[in-house]
Amino acid sequence: MAWTRKDLLGLEDLSKEEIGLILATAESFKEVSTREIKKVPALRGKTVVNLFYEPSTRTRVSFEIAAKRLSADVINIASLESSVRKGETLIDTGRNIEALKVDIIVVRHNYSGAAAMLARHVGACVINAGDGWHEHPTQALLDIFTLKGKLGRIEGLNVSIVGDIAHSRVARSNIWGLTKLGANVMVCAPKMLIPPAVEQMGVKVTSDIDEALGNADAVNVLRMQFERDTDAAFPKQLEYFKNFGITRERLGKAKKDIIVMHPGPLNRGIEIASDVADGANSVILEQVTNGIAVRMAALFLVAQANENISKDTTYGA
Amino acid sequence: MAWTRKDLLGLEDLSKEEIGLILATAESFKEVSTREIKKVPALRGKTVVNLFYEPSTRTRVSFEIAAKRLSADVINIASLESSVRKGETLIDTGRNIEALKVDIIVVRHNYSGAAAMLARHVGACVINAGDGWHEHPTQALLDIFTLKGKLGRIEGLNVSIVGDIAHSRVARSNIWGLTKLGANVMVCAPKMLIPPAVEQMGVKVTSDIDEALGNADAVNVLRMQFERDTDAAFPKQLEYFKNFGITRERLGKAKKDIIVMHPGPLNRGIEIASDVADGANSVILEQVTNGIAVRMAALFLVAQANENISKDTTYGA
Amino acid sequence: MAWTRKDLLGLEDLSKEEIGLILATAESFKEVSTREIKKVPALRGKTVVNLFYEPSTRTRVSFEIAAKRLSADVINIASLESSVRKGETLIDTGRNIEALKVDIIVVRHNYSGAAAMLARHVGACVINAGDGWHEHPTQALLDIFTLKGKLGRIEGLNVSIVGDIAHSRVARSNIWGLTKLGANVMVCAPKMLIPPAVEQMGVKVTSDIDEALGNADAVNVLRMQFERDTDAAFPKQLEYFKNFGITRERLGKAKKDIIVMHPGPLNRGIEIASDVADGANSVILEQVTNGIAVRMAALFLVAQANENISKDTTYGA
Repeated sequence: MAWTRKDLLGLEDLSKEEIGLILATAESFKEVSTREIKKVPALRGKTVVNLFYEPSTRTRVSFEIAAKRLSADVINIASLESSVRKGETLIDTGRNIEALKVDIIVVRHNYSGAAAMLARHVGACVINAGDGWHEHPTQALLDIFTLKGKLGRIEGLNVSIVGDIAHSRVARSNIWGLTKLGANVMVCAPKMLIPPAVEQMGVKVTSDIDEALGNADAVNVLRMQFERDTDAAFPKQLEYFKNFGITRERLGKAKKDIIVMHPGPLNRGIEIASDVADGANSVILEQVTNGIAVRMAALFLVAQANENISKDTTYGA
Repeated sequence: MAWTRKDLLGLEDLSKEEIGLILATAESFKEVSTREIKKVPALRGKTVVNLFYEPSTRTRVSFEIAAKRLSADVINIASLESSVRKGETLIDTGRNIEALKVDIIVVRHNYSGAAAMLARHVGACVINAGDGWHEHPTQALLDIFTLKGKLGRIEGLNVSIVGDIAHSRVARSNIWGLTKLGANVMVCAPKMLIPPAVEQMGVKVTSDIDEALGNADAVNVLRMQFERDTDAAFPKQLEYFKNFGITRERLGKAKKDIIVMHPGPLNRGIEIASDVADGANSVILEQVTNGIAVRMAALFLVAQANENISKDTTYGA
Repeated sequence: MAWTRKDLLGLEDLSKEEIGLILATAESFKEVSTREIKKVPALRGKTVVNLFYEPSTRTRVSFEIAAKRLSADVINIASLESSVRKGETLIDTGRNIEALKVDIIVVRHNYSGAAAMLARHVGACVINAGDGWHEHPTQALLDIFTLKGKLGRIEGLNVSIVGDIAHSRVARSNIWGLTKLGANVMVCAPKMLIPPAVEQMGVKVTSDIDEALGNADAVNVLRMQFERDTDAAFPKQLEYFKNFGITRERLGKAKKDIIVMHPGPLNRGIEIASDVADGANSVILEQVTNGIAVRMAALFLVAQANENISKDTTYGA
């Protein structure tokens, strides 16, 4: 099959085959970052804009490196910059960027649906680098890519996602992707951090961390964002760690080879114990490495599809 | 004729022929951004510094893309950065940048004359990306380039510029450029936003928007910067839109094919109605596209002239 | 001899021969920045990250240009960005950057020893671009490179360093480098700005500026950072200039050809008189130019050594 979408907005929309194509393409790009000259000419002369309304060094840098290893030109636009402050709408900003004959816009935005709205209004490709609580598809794809690299398959795996499920786009994208590929997904959080009707996404729900770990082949530990309410942060952190923190003791009761994932940045001693993050079960740094390959695949596939779409349009005209 | 200036500081200094040369060069570069590989090697191995004392995502990104499509290396220095805060003078900053063997400095500064002062003190090329209320030559050049592309000529056209003429470097550069090329320019604004003695620049003046639109082949709508005084912003905006806003009704009384331009970012519903900005007469996004070609031309011409100047100096020595 | 270190952390650790190798390599790279196409393919396909926890436009831009003239891809991460604010440790940040298959991390940090700690935890090369009051090796190397270029040698030269010795990583790196190469170093400052036991680094100490200049072949004038305590800044500045400022009168009593250096940015009228900074004895802008060559050499040598180390590891396995 061939990739035909000009945008990558979320995993909810994708078929099992499309997800498989991204993973296979990432596999073929993974080797590039191990070469002495870590560069292929695939996107030479293409322009990629990183348009980040929320700051995120990690995701921006990962996309920037991925684009440069494909030989694209990269332009960074940060949320602190002026156009945003001057109150231009997202659609006007997008249309202006498109008018610069940009090929791909990688967008991070604090509103759910922002990436999709942008995609509808521009002919350039749009890759969602996180929109509100909605989706963060490349993060989930790199999680799944890492899992598949470790265990050889996704189908039939038991994967638990632990943390603030209600406000996590990483959780949502993982749930869509994993269930489509046939994994059994369980989410685990304090009751108030479980979104209503999450079972309808095809997952099991628990607030018992031992149940979540008991039968899991992998656990994806979400970052807890206690910094948002500073007053009560410390006692809340202690309590969260006591009840949900991934510790060596808890892992001792899980499968011996359970895979431990985390999207970063780590809160050591809050959602995960330091020795677990650095331990033999952790694949956290491999996730970071795989992020480059997955983002190279996403950039490459949407750019190619868009070129074919444009050609078709031309031929048809 | 050949371009012989190492700097592009403003349109006041340029001859009709020099402006024509930039426009012709931009014409030849326009096609580059439509290629599959949007890149020419013209400035390979050259270093361009974007030195922005005022934030401006749009202009910075446009210059950055233009330079990269010419294969130059681009370094961004923003006003929030440290050297500026450490109180180094503009001249010392410029001399330091020159000592890095930089070829072109693109400078945006809040003081009128800053670009010219910098140009006098460095051997590197200087392109003025906006200095105080003085000039913003590449913006005017892209306006003129767009107009010429649409109507085939500038000579004899009636062009009205509407908005805060008194504080607009865009207006000033447009007036110099358009009048040199033989257009009839009218400026239109509330009386207190018309600079004293503006008639001496060769323009007609009115505060009647219908007069400004009545006979115009094109109207250039300036961005109103009400955000500077926040208290009274909203009632002032309403009143401005009522008296000077470019609406469909007002355009209905103008020439049917009147060209509507705006340097961006748009204040929809303040200086321009939303349906006009997106309507058939609007060339606003074409201006953005043409900005790349015009800035490629500016970067290319000054770099080439400076190389010839350096060679002459060497030969003469 | 060959360079064998994967990191450049400070001059204290280096042998005379290693310093000589960097200087010789810089000499060979100096010519690149005078070419029409200022670029060599030495680091093509390598990724360099500028990781700056303290802002420093000058050093960041110098490293960025150096890396780009070696054809490397450069990623800037500034201290204001999110990962840093999200409280990730330096080691976690470093490991994440390494996981992106980055080749060289150029790090500026406000804590002494930060660069060394980072280097111990990552396989990527680390270049110290200033760590607390500890070292700033490339600044000292470019000072020494400039001095050698002017006077043909370092051995036997009398070099005085004037300013806030106690809090200056530039002073410390210069002292280590100059004494290893056989220069006679004198430091000169108000008593409270002289670090305890500095004589054990092999330097003479004075608080008499005329003694410091009397027999010197070169004087390195440090930037005074009075901006840190704003209250008393102005009277302190006046008094410092009166007692330690490098003026034409004071230079009149020194050797006629004394070299005047300054790491920038200049405080004109505080540590150095304006006419001295711009005068015939000043090599301040040559230092900036030489910074590119020295940083190209540093980037090139560590990258090459690390590749050889990796190969050895592979062969040995």
